[in-house]
Amino acid sequence: MVASKKFNGVYIKDSVSLVGPLEKNGLLKNYDIAMDDYYYGEKTFEQAEVKMQRVVIDNLLQFNKLSENKIDLLLGGDLVNQISVSGYNASKFRIPFLGLYSACATYAEELIIGAAFISGHFAKKVIVTTSSHNLSAERQFRYPIEYGAIKKLTSTFTTTGAVATLLTNEQTNIRVESATIGKVVDMGVKDANNMGAVMAPAAADVLYTHLVEMKRNVNYYDLIVTGDLGIVGSEIFKEFLEKSYDIRIKKYMDAGGEIYAGIKDTYAGASGPVALPLVLFDKIINSRKYKKILIIATGSLQSPQLANQKIGIPGIAHAVSLEVL
Amino acid sequence: MVASKKFNGVYIKDSVSLVGPLEKNGLLKNYDIAMDDYYYGEKTFEQAEVKMQRVVIDNLLQFNKLSENKIDLLLGGDLVNQISVSGYNASKFRIPFLGLYSACATYAEELIIGAAFISGHFAKKVIVTTSSHNLSAERQFRYPIEYGAIKKLTSTFTTTGAVATLLTNEQTNIRVESATIGKVVDMGVKDANNMGAVMAPAAADVLYTHLVEMKRNVNYYDLIVTGDLGIVGSEIFKEFLEKSYDIRIKKYMDAGGEIYAGIKDTYAGASGPVALPLVLFDKIINSRKYKKILIIATGSLQSPQLANQKIGIPGIAHAVSLEVL
Repeated sequence: MVASKKFNGVYIKDSVSLVGPLEKNGLLKNYDIAMDDYYYGEKTFEQAEVKMQRVVIDNLLQFNKLSENKIDLLLGGDLVNQISVSGYNASKFRIPFLGLYSACATYAEELIIGAAFISGHFAKKVIVTTSSHNLSAERQFRYPIEYGAIKKLTSTFTTTGAVATLLTNEQTNIRVESATIGKVVDMGVKDANNMGAVMAPAAADVLYTHLVEMKRNVNYYDLIVTGDLGIVGSEIFKEFLEKSYDIRIKKYMDAGGEIYAGIKDTYAGASGPVALPLVLFDKIINSRKYKKILIIATGSLQSPQLANQKIGIPGIAHAVSLEVL
Repeated sequence: MVASKKFNGVYIKDSVSLVGPLEKNGLLKNYDIAMDDYYYGEKTFEQAEVKMQRVVIDNLLQFNKLSENKIDLLLGGDLVNQISVSGYNASKFRIPFLGLYSACATYAEELIIGAAFISGHFAKKVIVTTSSHNLSAERQFRYPIEYGAIKKLTSTFTTTGAVATLLTNEQTNIRVESATIGKVVDMGVKDANNMGAVMAPAAADVLYTHLVEMKRNVNYYDLIVTGDLGIVGSEIFKEFLEKSYDIRIKKYMDAGGEIYAGIKDTYAGASGPVALPLVLFDKIINSRKYKKILIIATGSLQSPQLANQKIGIPGIAHAVSLEVL
């Protein structure tokens, strides 16, 4: 078994990001679109999230002067049950669609499958999209926000936003170089309010596997970015890497800490599948400071039903290597 | 945009199937394992479904004398929120995992992605798995069964079962020849109890696209099998094909009608992502009557939240061409 894949001729052409009403006043500065309120002109939070995905794709097509019939494949996933936001959004476009889910690791899974289709000559242009909405997620995974349930300090805060990224076989300055598909790890953590602890061992496992299989040292990368272990989970990740794999990680950032700093009641930081791509394009690629970037997207795979059954919660992480030329 | 993909050197090596307590007394005869009750030795229906997936994979590995480290990729999806059955099951195996969802079209999506990874030389051996459990699905999508809510005649009955299939790059007698990835179609049907009507236009669209792009006549195939439009949806599908695309389909079967015939209260037939692969291996491939088979797996992409918001429900269908040598 080899979990790592090297891609040939796969590039990121462009990416469009939309942020929510809280996020636009946080640390992100280079987003394309901002929402003024959580309804975004729709009747429900779920329909608002469908619109968010539609708007980023519409803008991506428009900015790049592409009609939808030039796109071979749309890959989408989100946190709403049955990834229904992505399914409903896909009905707005006449593009072949595959629905994917690995919780907050969904964006990396999309990059991997999109890159495999392009590298294997099954597609030329692929759009990958993901989103999360604080209020559609909160009422589904935790409590309706109006209940005012008390949060733990290990809780993360679901980011409101959407991202659509165009992958292509034509050369650009951002190459999707390789990836490592993660294994699911269950360390017996039963607390759905401590997802950082659920996901940190999976993140360490995929980083170790990636470095071994690609024959690389951890310092090969100018930056390793996880998303989203949160403030608590990041510490567990670093400790786990040292103790279990003897890897000391220095050039490191967790996307969870890069969206809300200074904003009250965001607990251990941002989460949601959109947090990582928002930070990636806003603060990492845009900064032009990093050439070799490894993103490690992490997901906690519980449903409320199974989490309530008090068995260990499984975590996953996928790694994708990007080269900014 | 080309929605169809031709695969090179992708084969089905083996498949293991497990059926539930009702299904074992129905029309299926060639399954490998049968459950005596809905708990299957576990405390909850969801944990029973996790065990069902684990058992089919364990048996598949054992029958084929393979250890898990010989498998490059595990693809899984199911109906439980956050496809958590597949996520929890994946934690039992040290195999790289990607979670997929397209409702009852999930098995076809798995075959397509698995075939693309093998054909593109990103994997040699891939296990794809799916499951559904009548009681975990009913209490999530409709009502807890104890409520005794009255059903409509267009309702389908979620099949209890699990399937794990081994895809390989080594030649066998079943080839995964090509596939067409479906577009999401929303015809404005708002009734989640009439999923056949939601999915039939998507099934017709993907069949038409497949035939045009592959330059094939509908009679090229010895059998076209949908799963699961149900008794009502199949008629809509055939009518839609004739009226919108001038295609008359003769050598046709819907998997939904092939599991329960004669069993009381199963309404418009079987549904659930496992129904199609159960029928495919039990009644179609095993019969040795068909050489060129096109499976069209259909999915209805609502969540209860969005279906309750009374907007049109989107449907999808993916087509996969199999050649039995």
